[in-house]
Amino acid sequence: MNLPSKVRIVEVGPRDGLQNEKGPIIDTAIKVELINRLADAGLSYIEAASFVSPKWVPQMGDAAEVIAGLRPRENVTYAALAPNMKGLEAALEAGVKEVAVFGAASESFTQKNINCSIAESLQRFQPVLETALAQGLKVRGYVSTTLGCPYEGDIEPRKVAEVSKQLFDMGCYEISLGDTIGTGTPLKAKRMLEAVNREIPMNQLAAHFHDTYGQALANLYAVLEEGLAVIDSAVAGLGGCPYARGASGNVATEDVVYLLNGLQIETGIDLDKLISAGQFITQQLGRQSGSKVAQAWAG
Amino acid sequence: MNLPSKVRIVEVGPRDGLQNEKGPIIDTAIKVELINRLADAGLSYIEAASFVSPKWVPQMGDAAEVIAGLRPRENVTYAALAPNMKGLEAALEAGVKEVAVFGAASESFTQKNINCSIAESLQRFQPVLETALAQGLKVRGYVSTTLGCPYEGDIEPRKVAEVSKQLFDMGCYEISLGDTIGTGTPLKAKRMLEAVNREIPMNQLAAHFHDTYGQALANLYAVLEEGLAVIDSAVAGLGGCPYARGASGNVATEDVVYLLNGLQIETGIDLDKLISAGQFITQQLGRQSGSKVAQAWAG
Repeated sequence: MNLPSKVRIVEVGPRDGLQNEKGPIIDTAIKVELINRLADAGLSYIEAASFVSPKWVPQMGDAAEVIAGLRPRENVTYAALAPNMKGLEAALEAGVKEVAVFGAASESFTQKNINCSIAESLQRFQPVLETALAQGLKVRGYVSTTLGCPYEGDIEPRKVAEVSKQLFDMGCYEISLGDTIGTGTPLKAKRMLEAVNREIPMNQLAAHFHDTYGQALANLYAVLEEGLAVIDSAVAGLGGCPYARGASGNVATEDVVYLLNGLQIETGIDLDKLISAGQFITQQLGRQSGSKVAQAWAG
Repeated sequence: MNLPSKVRIVEVGPRDGLQNEKGPIIDTAIKVELINRLADAGLSYIEAASFVSPKWVPQMGDAAEVIAGLRPRENVTYAALAPNMKGLEAALEAGVKEVAVFGAASESFTQKNINCSIAESLQRFQPVLETALAQGLKVRGYVSTTLGCPYEGDIEPRKVAEVSKQLFDMGCYEISLGDTIGTGTPLKAKRMLEAVNREIPMNQLAAHFHDTYGQALANLYAVLEEGLAVIDSAVAGLGGCPYARGASGNVATEDVVYLLNGLQIETGIDLDKLISAGQFITQQLGRQSGSKVAQAWAG
């Protein structure tokens, strides 16, 4: 048992969350208000936007406006996804200080998702990373399908380690390990993390687990026991993965914070304010919260 | 790490689950059909009914008819709650082979719930246990509010151990430790279990955790690591605790079995058939399944 004393939450609701919500485009002002409320609740790292083609992801079409609407705060990082050079240029122009790129540990998923091999996808990130780093930006790397692929099923931990290491060697300061379809269970999560940790120090790894099968908190507890100390989550459990059947939703930040509070792990987050931020956005979206803690609080 | 190789699931859906569902009284035939489907899915222990006053729990008013409707099967135990002598007599008459009694670790909860002290409540069980044991029945003991009380908040692990020991000494062969309001987290669960385990062997303890705050599977994983090998759960996450705010639902058996399958822990349960049993009862109740696994399967 090696629980960290402190965990950093990476709030992905405004990006990974909203991007995968069905329904109409959300007003820029609402996105900005959500991000402000999350920062008020103590979230120190918020993925705020994605600089991708609005043709593919219309919900993120106002990325520059969202970033422009945010008041800079000491101790709060606003990050954005920038998967290609065009996206990076737009992110730089918008004044973003940190970007993220997105790989996968499954060949089939990569083929179906972006129509190329993993090796090709990493090659495409090369100029993005070089330019971003040269401009003084920090770059975070996502690896998806680390605990299962909708097409291949199980993924070898060493494959996850290999892709993670390549992104790390290309200059990503942190690798976020995604259970994209939420099929993982605790021992699988531990074994995968151990394989990656043979290549990358624990303090440069994060867990990005979806709760599709209800396993996310158990899996997070398992990797916390291994000493992992960065967790991605989305307020109200917003979003999911549009490419995978039934993959409905990131683990809810409220539920993660409740778990961490119970484990006496410091997060710097005010749970009441966080729940209010979740109520704000679920009301705007007209949907129920995906957070059980938020539901119990309201009940 | 001390994960068991095998776990016995105690299916409480037909009793603890249905008893706490809102809505009309469910037909006896539907209850019998649910129990048969659960047995077909490989559940070897099913809490099938409760012999309590129909004035207080109208949903369980047909307990004798439910038991009479069940075909005896080798390797399947049908149990019933029998909290007092009148209930025990009715259970004996119905031919039940195993009964359960129900205590709590919180004085305030006991007072508000059954209007007496813990000591008095245990005294009331004394003749029930004596008679049941003399008649050759096995008696299971529940202890509720082991990880938190709606009135008192935190409960001392040594208080849980004390009440558990008393029920154990009175002749209960197994003590099921309930997180009645679902506020527990993994370290709390471990500490509580360790305290109880100083009094009672691990193989005579069970976990009965509610998922109100989404923590049940993380808590179960934590106690599995301690070697606990009996888990109470309800198909489709039926039921909850009517006395506690927002306490909506037992942990879903489907989600527990999915977790255990992932941990390569044997249960003898066919997950597909279990999900079908859950679909059957949720359709009858006209409610969504409380199991994320069932939702993902259907999605």
